[in-house]
Amino acid sequence: MMNVEKPSLEVCLSPALLHLYDTSDAVVVIIDIFRATSTITAALHNGARCVIPVASVAECIAIGEATPNSLTAGERDGKIAEGLQYGNSPLEYPPLFVNGKTLVLTTTNGTRLLHMVKDAAEILIGSFLNLHALCAHLLLQDKRVILGCASWKDRFNLEDTLFAGAVANELRYAFEIKDDSARAAMHLYECAKGKHLIEFLKDSSHYRRLAAYGLEEEMRYCVTPDLHPVVPYLKGREIIV
Amino acid sequence: MMNVEKPSLEVCLSPALLHLYDTSDAVVVIIDIFRATSTITAALHNGARCVIPVASVAECIAIGEATPNSLTAGERDGKIAEGLQYGNSPLEYPPLFVNGKTLVLTTTNGTRLLHMVKDAAEILIGSFLNLHALCAHLLLQDKRVILGCASWKDRFNLEDTLFAGAVANELRYAFEIKDDSARAAMHLYECAKGKHLIEFLKDSSHYRRLAAYGLEEEMRYCVTPDLHPVVPYLKGREIIV
Repeated sequence: MMNVEKPSLEVCLSPALLHLYDTSDAVVVIIDIFRATSTITAALHNGARCVIPVASVAECIAIGEATPNSLTAGERDGKIAEGLQYGNSPLEYPPLFVNGKTLVLTTTNGTRLLHMVKDAAEILIGSFLNLHALCAHLLLQDKRVILGCASWKDRFNLEDTLFAGAVANELRYAFEIKDDSARAAMHLYECAKGKHLIEFLKDSSHYRRLAAYGLEEEMRYCVTPDLHPVVPYLKGREIIV
Repeated sequence: MMNVEKPSLEVCLSPALLHLYDTSDAVVVIIDIFRATSTITAALHNGARCVIPVASVAECIAIGEATPNSLTAGERDGKIAEGLQYGNSPLEYPPLFVNGKTLVLTTTNGTRLLHMVKDAAEILIGSFLNLHALCAHLLLQDKRVILGCASWKDRFNLEDTLFAGAVANELRYAFEIKDDSARAAMHLYECAKGKHLIEFLKDSSHYRRLAAYGLEEEMRYCVTPDLHPVVPYLKGREIIV
C-alpha cells in the first residue's frame, strides 16, 4: 500500500527562530542568496573539490594554510577581508580557476546558520542557481523539509524568503505546506514571479547595501535560476556535490 | 524650515525577534488579530473603563477579585479558562454589557509581547477593527513606529503580518519603510486586498485552529476594518482610550 501522508515543508525565516523547528531527521536547506549559498553552488558546479565554510577570517587563514591546493575567500563590508585572497562572488570562481581546488570560505550569516543545525538527516545548500536540481532532490528524498533562511544578522530578508517561496511553490503538491512562513513565502514568490526577480528585490535592504558596493551584476546572476544544477551537501566539515 | 526626514516604520514578525529592534522612544503597536487586540479594541470602544492584560489565569482571578465592577476573561484551547467568567471574543463585549467595567483579560501571545516592551514612547493596540483610527494617530505622532506581531508561540503568523502590511501601506508616503519585514508585509497585503481578507487567511494556521472550535464568524469580524475606531494605549498596567 502506498503511503499517502505527505512530508511537511516549513520555512524558518531567521536563525533566531531556528529553535522553534525540529530539525532532527529532517532535510535542512541553508539559504543565503546574497551571496554565500550562490557562491558555494557556483564554485562546486565549476569543479571545486569542496567548500569549507568557516565563521572567522582567522580560521579561514589557518585552514587555508593547512590545506593543499586551497583558496581562502571572504568579504567584510563588501571588500575582500584582510588576509584572504578572494571575495564572495559566484562570478569569481570559473571552471578553469576553481577546478580541483578547496575553497575555504568565510561568511557570516550563511555559515552561522549552517553550524547551528546539528541533527538533520541532510544539510543542503540552496540558491536560485540550483533551484530545480534541489527541488528534484527533495522530491526524491520524501523526508520532512525545513528551508532555513540565513537572513541578515537575524533580521528577516526578502531574497532568502523569496527563494524559500520558489521552492515551496515547486513542491506544494508533494509536501504539506505546514506553517504560515511557508505560506507567506509562497505569496511573496507569487507577487514577484511576473517580473524578473531582481526587479522585485531592488527595494530590499540587502540589494541596496550591495548595490552601494557596485554589485548589481552579481546580484542579478544570483537570482537567475538553474545556472548551476548541482545539489551541494554538508559532509563532515566539507560541502561537496 | 520643515523637517523633511521621515520617521521610520519597521515590522517585528515575532516576539523572538524583538531584541533586534530599538523600541526606545518609538511608538510600538501590539498586534494580535486572532484575537487579543481585536477584543481589547472592541471592548474599549463599547465603553469598558479599561482592560488589564495579564499573563496567567491565576493573576486574572486575583486582580478580578481585587477590582470592583470587573470581568475576568480568557481562553485556553478555545474554551473559557477554568475559574474565569468570559472568553476572548470581540463579540462577547457589547456596550450594554461592558460599559463602565474593567476587563481583566489573560491572553498568551499578545500579553507576552506587550509586557516585553519596556521603554517605548507609547504602546498602542492595533487591529483591523481600529485600522484607520490607529493610522491617523501614527501620522500625527510623527515618531518612529515599530509594528509588533504577537505571532503564535513565537512563530510567524499570517494574520498579524497582514495587518502590519495594511498599516505600512497606509503610512508608506509619510514614513520610511525601513526593513524587509515591512516590505514583505506590504506585499502580502497587496496579495490579499483584492478579495475579502478572511478568504486570504482561510489557509493559515491560526484560522484552521480556531475554525476547529467553530469561531469562523468572529474571525470574519476580527478582519473587518474600522468597526471600532479608537486608539487604545497602555498606561501603567491599564489599557485605556
